[in-house]
Amino acid sequence: MMEELLDDAGTVAAARLVHPGDEVAEYVARAAWTVIAEPGDAVAGALIEALGPEEALSAALDETGSLLPPGERGRHASRALAEGRARWRPRAVPETVRQALRSAADVGARLVVPGDDQWPAALDDLGPHAPVALWVRGRVELLVASPRVSMVGARAASGYGEHVAAELAGDLAAAGAVIVSGGAYGIDGAVHRAALGVGGTTIAFLAGGVDRAYPVGHRRLLQQIAVEGAVVSEPPCGTAPTKWRFLARNRLIAALGQATVVVEAGWRSGSLNTAGHAATLGRPLGAVPGPVTSASSAGCHRLLREYDAQCVTSAAEVRELWGQLDDSRSPDETGDPNRTRLLDAMSTRSRLSVEEIARRSGLSPDRVRSLLGLLHLEGDVSLAESGWQRLPSSQRG
Amino acid sequence: MMEELLDDAGTVAAARLVHPGDEVAEYVARAAWTVIAEPGDAVAGALIEALGPEEALSAALDETGSLLPPGERGRHASRALAEGRARWRPRAVPETVRQALRSAADVGARLVVPGDDQWPAALDDLGPHAPVALWVRGRVELLVASPRVSMVGARAASGYGEHVAAELAGDLAAAGAVIVSGGAYGIDGAVHRAALGVGGTTIAFLAGGVDRAYPVGHRRLLQQIAVEGAVVSEPPCGTAPTKWRFLARNRLIAALGQATVVVEAGWRSGSLNTAGHAATLGRPLGAVPGPVTSASSAGCHRLLREYDAQCVTSAAEVRELWGQLDDSRSPDETGDPNRTRLLDAMSTRSRLSVEEIARRSGLSPDRVRSLLGLLHLEGDVSLAESGWQRLPSSQRG
Repeated sequence: MMEELLDDAGTVAAARLVHPGDEVAEYVARAAWTVIAEPGDAVAGALIEALGPEEALSAALDETGSLLPPGERGRHASRALAEGRARWRPRAVPETVRQALRSAADVGARLVVPGDDQWPAALDDLGPHAPVALWVRGRVELLVASPRVSMVGARAASGYGEHVAAELAGDLAAAGAVIVSGGAYGIDGAVHRAALGVGGTTIAFLAGGVDRAYPVGHRRLLQQIAVEGAVVSEPPCGTAPTKWRFLARNRLIAALGQATVVVEAGWRSGSLNTAGHAATLGRPLGAVPGPVTSASSAGCHRLLREYDAQCVTSAAEVRELWGQLDDSRSPDETGDPNRTRLLDAMSTRSRLSVEEIARRSGLSPDRVRSLLGLLHLEGDVSLAESGWQRLPSSQRG
Repeated sequence: MMEELLDDAGTVAAARLVHPGDEVAEYVARAAWTVIAEPGDAVAGALIEALGPEEALSAALDETGSLLPPGERGRHASRALAEGRARWRPRAVPETVRQALRSAADVGARLVVPGDDQWPAALDDLGPHAPVALWVRGRVELLVASPRVSMVGARAASGYGEHVAAELAGDLAAAGAVIVSGGAYGIDGAVHRAALGVGGTTIAFLAGGVDRAYPVGHRRLLQQIAVEGAVVSEPPCGTAPTKWRFLARNRLIAALGQATVVVEAGWRSGSLNTAGHAATLGRPLGAVPGPVTSASSAGCHRLLREYDAQCVTSAAEVRELWGQLDDSRSPDETGDPNRTRLLDAMSTRSRLSVEEIARRSGLSPDRVRSLLGLLHLEGDVSLAESGWQRLPSSQRG
């Protein structure tokens, strides 16, 4: 399949658009894997980990089992590979891969792969279930900006839930946090909108392709996120969301956030699935309480009781989840919300270049330089030849 | 002082009314201690523990320091005793003690002292801060009935708080739990009323004497509790509530309950003091969540965050606090709420007499006999010569 794809000038051109760089074959292979394997396919993940995406693709589609270990483990791997091939082959149609690349190029999506500067190392915690690649519309650098907080909840949210979601997300985004959510109606929509409303940044993980607005009622919201934030998906363009893909998408939301907060959820809400992933990954988990008389909060109370989630009632308490001290300065006092975001991206132990800080914070290098100058004057950061360093509170001017 | 009190026929007659039995001198001495020492006076507690109430009273009021240990410990004890004497002597007026006994007899109050069948052993967990005696109006046997759950909360409760308080207390009381609270406006009043409303039982701990309705707006409620439940106080009749006495009273509520639940509380609510006592005593602590937008729930959320309180949203979850399995039978299914109360009072390990079960459950011996007959038919209990025993679920018919 790879030869057929790489022989086609249009495919290669599209691949170069969605991922600049020399390793075109790798990008095409990873793009092909997003087409032929469902999200979180651990056999595909192990095969790619062992052989690299191109060779794994050959192994997946040709009958080359020679690399398998001998004995019982080999037999198990052989069976898993046979089952994988049965899943993958029907989808291994070069034209589908071509179309995925072309559609991505058409909507200006980027392919982000492991090893890229914008590849979020946090997703590697998923092991063989980590995505093969991510399709991203908008600001790819946000995937590695920090801090990132995942905020999710029920589609059928109450007025209370949407109100609290917006308050928390707005406060956190104004203070520089990237708000990660799932683009759904209800809580997800409220947190995305609140983040954009304060001029902050947000990432929407979709269960289908990034070229499809799902839910359709969020078409304009998702378009705005694709410009001011990032719309991200594991399946390629043209893919419809399915129940499995929603569940698989949830693991990415849980893995990307440095903490996950469930704002409002019914007893069997899908957001408890995201919370379960966060807990499994060892990510701090918060739940916002609500009236015990409201079925919309029953899932949050369940998280407090059964998942040992932390009770969070304010943005400051959400920040405590990822161990960031609340310095009890409001955005007004700090003058600029990006200031917190910049400081969060810096280290008190090692010196970083302006470029590295820009990469970590998701701010432009120019903005970083001007903020650093201000923070330097105020004694919050120090500068040496090797770079910029954040000063511990005790040493600040 | 004791001679003067015991020489007075009216005093002795009143003492016999408030506590039948032969040890009149002990009862009078304990009554005197409730007059001269403030609640929780650890020096008084240690002195009574060491010498018994009568001799302790002599030691407190006469200059007999001979029983003190020598050396540094003796000097410390000597100083503590000297300070105690300075506190106690101004109050050691026989007429005040006489008046306390007479007033108690007038309102039909009983004096309950350590060693009595109705003395709640749970209070002994308070060590030297345990009360010297309790003044009780109403059904003294409720002090040792089981299960007992303390439910407290803010005076300035919201409609939501009062609603949830009434729902939980009503459910628990209907299933046989004794609801312990502080008789205050707001949450306390709601739980007392709910317990009475379902024909259940409730105990109100007052900060002042049991002859005084405090708050006055709860005069009728407290009168009803003094008939159908129990109104209990550590200070004697005639004592006004003070801030210290409210705080000291809170420790009794926390100690008597087999679990404590804070239903609704502001950030600095006094009920957090009760919760703190419960936590210190190792009693299971529950907090009912509420809207994060409501200041009336901030104290409950604080308990969830800072005191490791369990989030409770239903009567079943409150029952889980004291380790009682929810057998998911509603009162309707069990036919009689007293059935649960009876089973709770029984043991699966030892056999008890009808009288002992009546004492533990707060039900009349006749009621116990008829219920036991029913439960025996249904295979929930077994009978042998040595008494009645609850059968483990696995062995039930």
